[in-house]
Amino acid sequence: MQRLITELSRLPGIGKRSAERVAFYLLKRPAEEAAALARAIEDLKKNVHHCSVCFNLTEHDPCAICGDAQRDRTQVLVVEQPRDVATMEQTGMYKGVYHVLMGRLSPLDGIGPGELNIDSLMARLTSDKVREVILGTNPSIEGDGTALYLARELGAHGVKVSRLGRGLPTGSELEYVSKAVLADALHGRQDLAP
Amino acid sequence: MQRLITELSRLPGIGKRSAERVAFYLLKRPAEEAAALARAIEDLKKNVHHCSVCFNLTEHDPCAICGDAQRDRTQVLVVEQPRDVATMEQTGMYKGVYHVLMGRLSPLDGIGPGELNIDSLMARLTSDKVREVILGTNPSIEGDGTALYLARELGAHGVKVSRLGRGLPTGSELEYVSKAVLADALHGRQDLAP
Repeated sequence: MQRLITELSRLPGIGKRSAERVAFYLLKRPAEEAAALARAIEDLKKNVHHCSVCFNLTEHDPCAICGDAQRDRTQVLVVEQPRDVATMEQTGMYKGVYHVLMGRLSPLDGIGPGELNIDSLMARLTSDKVREVILGTNPSIEGDGTALYLARELGAHGVKVSRLGRGLPTGSELEYVSKAVLADALHGRQDLAP
Repeated sequence: MQRLITELSRLPGIGKRSAERVAFYLLKRPAEEAAALARAIEDLKKNVHHCSVCFNLTEHDPCAICGDAQRDRTQVLVVEQPRDVATMEQTGMYKGVYHVLMGRLSPLDGIGPGELNIDSLMARLTSDKVREVILGTNPSIEGDGTALYLARELGAHGVKVSRLGRGLPTGSELEYVSKAVLADALHGRQDLAP
């Protein structure tokens, strides 16, 4: 019991009290239910791998997105982590494919280009006849640094490079956004007419 | 005393307890201090008016921005309220002038084009030889509706119309932004190379 509580309280967002509650809950439920949970956790690590094409998490290789003939293989959205793929997929707006870097450049933490999935991205440029790479790293200092590095590398290969638009977040109000956001919005203003 | 507390607690962000605290504070201070505050409040209403050019709040007409020969009079940023001018000025990035609508279109509240400073904006197009109008209404449903209306009206006059960029707010993280923001960011992506 104590061992389970310790293990559970290591999970993000689960403190000691929540861990105890979960442990007692499992004690009360039928043995099969606890066994099913244990199996699901084991299977997760056993069956979930990185897609060999885009490095998204998947149970089958290639992943469902890379394997979908309807998706435009010539448009690649580069993101930092698998969770960003899930977030973007929820919009239902993007019809291209992805490439997951598995991190961002962070020289201070010793993460250089060699630690990220960049060589495989370069290899896809020719093998998949990539037309456009959209950089979707986080709008943070390190994310922008990574985007800048990639833009230079990719640009040298003659492929079109863009980044996700920067500016006012829809639903916000002008008076509450930061100076940096306003500066981005002013700089990246969009033509409406003529 | 009770009358002052009632008046104070009408102010935004000041509840009954804060109002009482302020009232007792004023009681303890010398009479001149209370008189100075009273005078400042009276003068505010007496001396602050709307600029006859841009409708920003000002003690002198025209306002300091409209009267500044260094500002580019051919570029007009349209905002909903005087506070938005102050917010944008804090970035120090904008060198044009402003036009304050004093609201946004809101048909349900009976606010149509006639209730906003739109005629005066149209008049400025020719009198100030305006080259570009940047729409800086809030990125909300009503703000966007107002921008759409203005883009149509202004476009018919042949002036260049843009709106503040929409997308990821700098400093955020992809996984925490809303679907609408991601959709905007994807739609309004910016070319980096070639």
